[in-house]
Order: sequence, then structure tokens, then C-alpha cells
Amino acid sequence: MALARIARTGLRRSEVTVGGYSGERDMFCEGVPIHKRSLPSLENVTTNDNLAYLSSIRNINHMSFWSRGIRITPHHRVYSAERVVEESESEYEESRFAGLEATRPGEKPRVVVLGTGWAACRFMKGLNTNLYDVVCVSPRNHMVFTPLLASTCVGTLEFRSVVEPVSQIQSALATEPNSYFYLASCTGIDTDKHEVYCETVSTGGLTHEPYQFKVAYDKLVIAAGAQALTFGIKGVKEHAFFLREVNHAQEIRKKLLLNLMLAENPGIPEEEKKRLLHCVVIGGGPTGVEFSGELSDFIMRDVHERYTHVKDDIKVTLIEANEILSSFDVRLRQYATNHLAKSDVQLMRGVVKEVCAKKILLNDGTEVPYGLLVWSTGVGPSEFVKSIDFPKSPGGRIGVDEWLRVPSVEDVFAIGDCAGFLEQTGRQVLPALAQVAEREGKYLVELFNNIGKQNGGKAFSAKDIPLGQPFVYKHLGSMASVGRYKALVDLRQSKDAKGISLAGYLSWLIWRSAYLTRVISWRNRFYVTVNWATTLVFGRDNSRIG
Amino acid sequence: MALARIARTGLRRSEVTVGGYSGERDMFCEGVPIHKRSLPSLENVTTNDNLAYLSSIRNINHMSFWSRGIRITPHHRVYSAERVVEESESEYEESRFAGLEATRPGEKPRVVVLGTGWAACRFMKGLNTNLYDVVCVSPRNHMVFTPLLASTCVGTLEFRSVVEPVSQIQSALATEPNSYFYLASCTGIDTDKHEVYCETVSTGGLTHEPYQFKVAYDKLVIAAGAQALTFGIKGVKEHAFFLREVNHAQEIRKKLLLNLMLAENPGIPEEEKKRLLHCVVIGGGPTGVEFSGELSDFIMRDVHERYTHVKDDIKVTLIEANEILSSFDVRLRQYATNHLAKSDVQLMRGVVKEVCAKKILLNDGTEVPYGLLVWSTGVGPSEFVKSIDFPKSPGGRIGVDEWLRVPSVEDVFAIGDCAGFLEQTGRQVLPALAQVAEREGKYLVELFNNIGKQNGGKAFSAKDIPLGQPFVYKHLGSMASVGRYKALVDLRQSKDAKGISLAGYLSWLIWRSAYLTRVISWRNRFYVTVNWATTLVFGRDNSRIG
Repeated sequence: MALARIARTGLRRSEVTVGGYSGERDMFCEGVPIHKRSLPSLENVTTNDNLAYLSSIRNINHMSFWSRGIRITPHHRVYSAERVVEESESEYEESRFAGLEATRPGEKPRVVVLGTGWAACRFMKGLNTNLYDVVCVSPRNHMVFTPLLASTCVGTLEFRSVVEPVSQIQSALATEPNSYFYLASCTGIDTDKHEVYCETVSTGGLTHEPYQFKVAYDKLVIAAGAQALTFGIKGVKEHAFFLREVNHAQEIRKKLLLNLMLAENPGIPEEEKKRLLHCVVIGGGPTGVEFSGELSDFIMRDVHERYTHVKDDIKVTLIEANEILSSFDVRLRQYATNHLAKSDVQLMRGVVKEVCAKKILLNDGTEVPYGLLVWSTGVGPSEFVKSIDFPKSPGGRIGVDEWLRVPSVEDVFAIGDCAGFLEQTGRQVLPALAQVAEREGKYLVELFNNIGKQNGGKAFSAKDIPLGQPFVYKHLGSMASVGRYKALVDLRQSKDAKGISLAGYLSWLIWRSAYLTRVISWRNRFYVTVNWATTLVFGRDNSRIG
Repeated sequence: MALARIARTGLRRSEVTVGGYSGERDMFCEGVPIHKRSLPSLENVTTNDNLAYLSSIRNINHMSFWSRGIRITPHHRVYSAERVVEESESEYEESRFAGLEATRPGEKPRVVVLGTGWAACRFMKGLNTNLYDVVCVSPRNHMVFTPLLASTCVGTLEFRSVVEPVSQIQSALATEPNSYFYLASCTGIDTDKHEVYCETVSTGGLTHEPYQFKVAYDKLVIAAGAQALTFGIKGVKEHAFFLREVNHAQEIRKKLLLNLMLAENPGIPEEEKKRLLHCVVIGGGPTGVEFSGELSDFIMRDVHERYTHVKDDIKVTLIEANEILSSFDVRLRQYATNHLAKSDVQLMRGVVKEVCAKKILLNDGTEVPYGLLVWSTGVGPSEFVKSIDFPKSPGGRIGVDEWLRVPSVEDVFAIGDCAGFLEQTGRQVLPALAQVAEREGKYLVELFNNIGKQNGGKAFSAKDIPLGQPFVYKHLGSMASVGRYKALVDLRQSKDAKGISLAGYLSWLIWRSAYLTRVISWRNRFYVTVNWATTLVFGRDNSRIG
């Protein structure tokens, strides 16, 4: 355990408590374990309290650091958290967090998985639950089939068709007595003690006071994903929509339909009408291009049929600093450019300087008024990844070796968008693609099942077990739809390699069937087919719910 | 026009404007029409501004009334609105509101419909658009198939399957050059001028500064619905969920799944776990009973399979002050009571005194801790209905005569839950049922098509046209599902009449097929069937989106 480190982010705790514990002073008086106090107030529904809570976090960001070998991350730091850690040097620490204690001899080893994305779900799906118990910690209880997310924004697909509940992917989470799914975020890891610290999250407009607990692990798989890059540009977080989660797609849909209807109001000036109906997409990667294509399909077919009063004013602009679809073959890029132009998607070269409530300012001084702004300029390390004190790969991801281990500590692995090869492995960091994440999950779960069979599942017990072949990624190709039954399929193994590339209707058929076979459950395969068929027959649904 | 009245609620206007017009003093300086000023700031996305807006409304509730024959409703009154009205005595009023002016000779008469519920949609569906242009004003752009709403809360049906976009119901709204759908609320009616005043609404978490406009009508159909009754009980609005709109169902679903997951957290005390998993339904009408049945189905099948860690702690309680399903045959009531008891739904007699964040206080002093609270104790007149100065029916609805006219004014009709027979008609106010609303819509649209053919469509032109037979309601029977493939079918024409009543599996089949044929579009008929089939085969979807 020479290199074991303690990486722990702040243990958030609201100062708003129920039952008389509202003073920060008496929150941690001697001998009373924290969980006993936070439990009676698991829910907290008043908005005012939340505002108070948020502002208290903000204040705390300026507080001084606390050190002694444990790194506190600024983003999650909270005043009271420091006190927890300060007292945690004593023997009492264990009793401070309720949760799952370390497994005992004779019990199955426990794998803790952080995340429910492509990597995490592929891993959990393949895990031999005769060998392991599994605990999954994630702020969402489902996997999102991201490549089809853009289609849900305009109603081509229903939201639920691209979502897979995690208990369907690994039923042990729901049925095995010692396997669990926890709707929570991981706030810290103690690699020395083999424990992760978690906190429940408020989502979907429902708030409750955060509840903290710990989970001891035998093996830890970090697959916590990445977050959208904003390059620190002012106004992006406030005014733009991202397209990474189902609720993002829901928000985009609501906004689009709202603007379509607001633009119909009588007496509204032409300029304001045009602004409301101007949809701007920033970033010409596959997501940006697919979303633009879907939007243009929606406009051509559905807006022209069902919003005839405004159909001539709606416009889509795709802004990209360099080239669209830069990872694709040059022929395909050209095809996509021409196709989008034919579909009335305006392509614009530009670098965004600032985003205001109703317009975008570009570096060259141009002002672009908009009604809907979708931001998809790639992803980078999340706050959580930035906060943990592991060696990092180039680009700031969690550094892993060829076996996807975090080499500085024992029993910790990282996969998916949050992980990257360490520089000393001599390998390149792989792109943040579903394909990569899935392949890593598949590789790692086979490694786990192997170790498990050789009794290496328990903590500190896999040192002498050979791990087998290191992970090798072989790119199968890239696909992107561009709208109007057309898609690109690039089967080259890398950007500079030679190989087959296709564009057009046949590619679109390949695109649809490839994704259909990748959809995990039969239920959703059925639903996606049904959605596509009904869209073809009846058009897209345009009811604005919520 | 002897009895014409002017009924106008306040014309809300935020004091937060963009472009220097923030001072209330210079907001209405002479000669500048209001719409010119409010237009550049159609959207307003910052929360702070909204809070300021809300608090400004609150302050204004204490302001003095303004009179001169025009009644201002306290609920909608806003300081600046009074000024608008004060100055509106002058000739300038027309220019103050952009909007649709009165139709000219030679143009088709314009029917304005307020609402998109059962009555409004049945009316619009049948309207002869060769005779009329139609303008629909409603805060939602779809009709909700309310009898199936309870099923969506637990995932038996998808939300979109019970929703019908209004432009699918009457395509003229989307395609005819002089027909429109406006996503807005009606804030006032000037029956003298034949104009309605509207304001756009912020919904679905998206805010924008309200925009006001007017719409002149030849004929007005008020079908604005009712609102949930809370009997002024403290805490209901803050803590309980209603079940009348799709977003209510979405909220209930999110809360239910959140509680199921929170209850799994390690270390949570038994008492808190039991509270989180206690679902309480207040009101034993068809909605309350159907929702309890669906919940119990969900628990029996899905929670037992997918939340095995908490399955023994989840509980459903139905609280009713009198008898459940009081409008049904006594045999059916008994059947329902027995069936619910067998399904582990606890029936409780009680009157709610107050609702707190985590518990309900009953009149007899009992405290009922809850995790989810659904309130369905019937409906009463909405604020809008209360605010308009028409003669009212017993119970406070808009009073109508046997032809569904508002007899005190010309060219105004009211149907659905917002309308009731005037006492002098000697008829009883009909119950707030989808069946009644639909039948009224059907009757009225036939009347309209008749008048239209005889050139009575224009304003003030139908006086001498015979209206034909008055409206007669014939009750076809009532249905309610009680869960586990069982339902009640009561075919008696009234509460005290004799007739056929059925309960059990056959009734459940009748219930399903009856509703399936009532679903308006083929698209949704298809989707409802598909949803039912997949629920049967794969179970309910339990992904928690948003």
C-alpha cells in the first residue's frame, strides 16, 4: 500500500436541519454520530431553505483549506465538512457514517461501481453475480442511449425509448440481498480504508436534505463520466442547453415548442419572431450535426404541416470554429456540408466570445440573436474527477494503466470518459465515445470475473493474480445521421487510415439498424421500432407537456 | 344588448421590463401604445427578476379597487393593470393591445374557444371550418385523456399516450391562415366589444416575460375547466400532488421513484423508511380509487420484483371522509372496498385538518406520516371563472341556459366543468365528468354549424335564428378500475335509478376497450395498446427521468 492515498472531497451538509440542529456550532458536539442527526430531516421541500443552503455553499468557497495529507476539493467543500474531517483522525470516524461496512470473510466480495453510463452499465451487465455483490452509486437510475438522444428532442423518438433502467441491465441490483443501487453522488474516496462517501442528490425539481453515507468496497470501478466543456465562456451555463441527459432533451423540446407557439402570438414584431425561431447549435461534432439534421427534418415535415403561420421564419444555424465532423473522412465531411446546406441548415464559422440571454457574441464582433441555443462542443473532466487526488492522464482524466487500473492505489479501476491512459504507458488517451466506454466495460468485467474465479475478489487479494492481456482498443468506425434519411458511415480505424466510407440512404439504413441492435433491452428495441414507424406514418408528436 | 356586461380581470404586467422602462411611473406616458413597449422583452430568463415580479404582484393585492362598472378581480389585479384600464375610457384603447381585430364583412366569422379540455376539444373537432375560423386560447397545447392519467403515474402507460395535440384534433388551427392556437391564459373578457384579453404563460420551468394581446370574437366558447378543491385546508397546495395534468402525473412518478430509492439508502432508520414508503391518497372518488389500484398493482408486481430491499415496507392508504365511490351502486362499492382491502390498500375514514411537510393531521387528532400525498377530492370553480362577472349557477360555475348560452350577454357560450345550468332553468348542475363535457361540446358544435349555415355566425347576427332542441344529458354509466385486472361498470342512468352494474374481470375488459375506443387519434390508440402489451410482457418501466 506504498502509494495509497486518501482522496476525499468535501462532505456536503446543509446548515438547514430540522429539529433544532440548525446552528452550525452545535452540529458536531461530542459523541453524537453525524448520521443520527441528519436522518430525521431527509427531506426538505421548501424553496427558501434551499436558497439558504446554496448561498451557504457559496460563502464557504472562500474558507481556508485544511490539510494533513487529505485534499479537500474547492468545489465540494463546505464549512461543516471540514469539521467532520478534522475530527475524523480519531477512532470515532467509522461511527460517523452509517453505511455498508467492509465485507466479512466468507461473504462475497463487493464491487462498487460509480456511474450508470456506457462503461458502468456494460461492466455491470457482464458481472458474474455468483462471484461478486455489486453496489452502484449514481445520480440517475438509468442508462441513456446517447446516440439516439438528439432524435428525442423533436419527437422522432420518445424519451423512454432511449432509456434503460439500471435494474434491467443488472437485475442483481434489485433482487440480491447484498447488492444495491443508490441514487446518490460520490463525494469522496478513501482508498486506504477502501471506502467511498456518498450523498443523495436533489433532482427533477424535488429537493430533500442531502443524506450522507459510506460504502466499503473490495473493488472500486470509477465510471463517473465527463461533463460538457464550456471553455469558461461567459453565459453558456446560464443560457445554453446541453444535450447529454434525457432531461436536457426534454428541456430543449419544451423550449422549441414554446418558441414556436410564442412566435405565433398576434402583433409580435417581425424581428422578435425571427429571434424566437432561430435555433443555434454550437459545435459541429456528431451530436451537433445530428441535432441540426433532426431539427431540419422536424422543420421540413412537421413545422411546415403544423405551424404554417411561422414556417417561413424558422431557421437553424450551426456554428463551428473549425471544420464540422473533423474526425470523419474528407469526402464524408464534404457530403455532410452539402447535405446540411440543402436542408437549410446555415453553416457558420465562428468562435463564441460570450452568450447573452437573447444573442451570442462572436469573436469577430458578429451578434447572433437566438431563441434556442444548444451547446455541444465536447466533454472534459468533471468536477468530481478534478477533485480526486489520483495521477491524471493528459487532459486531466483519471490516469490508468493498460489494465485500466489506477496504478497508484490498490483495487481501484477507472473506465469510460473519466479515465485515460497515463503518459508513462506510452498510449494515447482514447476519445470520449460510447464505443470506447463500452469496450472498456466489457474488457474490465472479463478481467473481474477472471480474478474472482481465482479468489482475488476481496480487497488486497489480487496482487499475485495474473491479469491477462492488457486492454487494446480497436475502432470499429463512426456513424452520424445528417437528416432526411441520410447518414455517414466511416469504417476507417483511425483518422488517417484508409478504409471504407459511405454516405447516403444506405448509410442511413446501416445507421438505424446498427443502433437498433445496440439498444440493450428487447423492450426498447421494440419501442424504438414502434416510434420510428409511427413517426413515419403519423408524423412527430408535438404536444408540449409540463 | 340590454344585459351586456364588461367582465375584465386585471391585465397583468410585470414591472421588470427591458430597455429602460423599469420605472412604473414612465411606463404609460402618453401616446405610446403598451404593446410596443412590452414586446422587446418577451423573454425573461433570470430567476431574480421573476421573484421581483411575483413579490410585486403580492404587494398589489392590497391596493384599492377601481370601479366605474368594470369589475376587477382581486386574484389577477396588478398595479399597472389598473392604469391601463383607467386610461382605457378614451378612444385610444384599441391601439393599446395588438391582436386580432374584429372580422370584416365578407370574412368568415371567428369562434374563439377558451380551453383544451374534453368540452373544448370535442367542440373544435366537430366545427365546420368552411363556415368558421377558429382561435383557441389555452395554457396547454394538448388535450389530456384524463381517465387514463392515473395509469401513467406508475408507468403502465407512457405520458404521451394519453395526450393529444390540439392541432391533431382540429387541423385548421395549424393550417388555416386565419385560425390560430395561442399558448396563453385568458385574463379578461369585454362582452360589449366582443374581445378577450390574453396573456402568455410561463410553464414547464421556462419563464418569459408575459406578453399581452387581445382577440376579437364573433362567438365565444368558454370551456376553461375547473380546479382541484382544497377546501382551504392548510398545506394542501404546498405538499400534496394533484392528478389533473400530465405534469402532475410526472411529478407523482418522480416522487414515488425518488422515495423508493431514498428508502434503500444504508443506515436509514426504520421509521423514516416507513414514512418515505407510505403513499397516501385523499379522496375516494374514481380518480382516488383508480390511482390506489394502480399503485397497488405497481407494488405487487414491480416493486416486489425490482425493489426487493424495501418491498415489505411500502404501503398505500386511501383516506375518505364518507364513502368511497359514492356515486356507484352499493354492490359495486362493496366490491371495490373488498377488492382494495385484498390489494393491501388500507381504507381509512377521516377528515383532513392540516397537511404538513411529512405528516397529515386529521380532525380526530390522528397523525399520518407520509412520503407521497395525492389529493383528489373533486373540483370547483377556477379563479378565472370566479373572476368573471357573469351570473353563476349553484356552485359558482358560469350560468348557462338550456342551449348552453350565457343568457345575460350575446354570442357567449360556456361548456364543460366551468359551466352549469342557471337556477331559473329548473335543471340540476351536471357533474364534472368527461362524459358531460364531451356531450356538451358535441351538442354545441352542432348548434354552431347550424347557425353558421343560416348566416348567423357573425357577432350580433344570431338573434332571430332558431336554436333547435335544448341540450339534454343522458348518462351512459360510470366506470372505474380498481387494480389487478378488475373494474366496476355501473350502467344506471342516475344514482337512484335501477340498471345493470358489473364488477370484476369482464368489467375490466369493458373498461379497457371502452377507453381505447374513446382515445381520439389512431396514433394514440396504437400507443395505448402497445403500452398495455409491453407492461404485460416486460413490466412497467421504472427509469426516473429528470
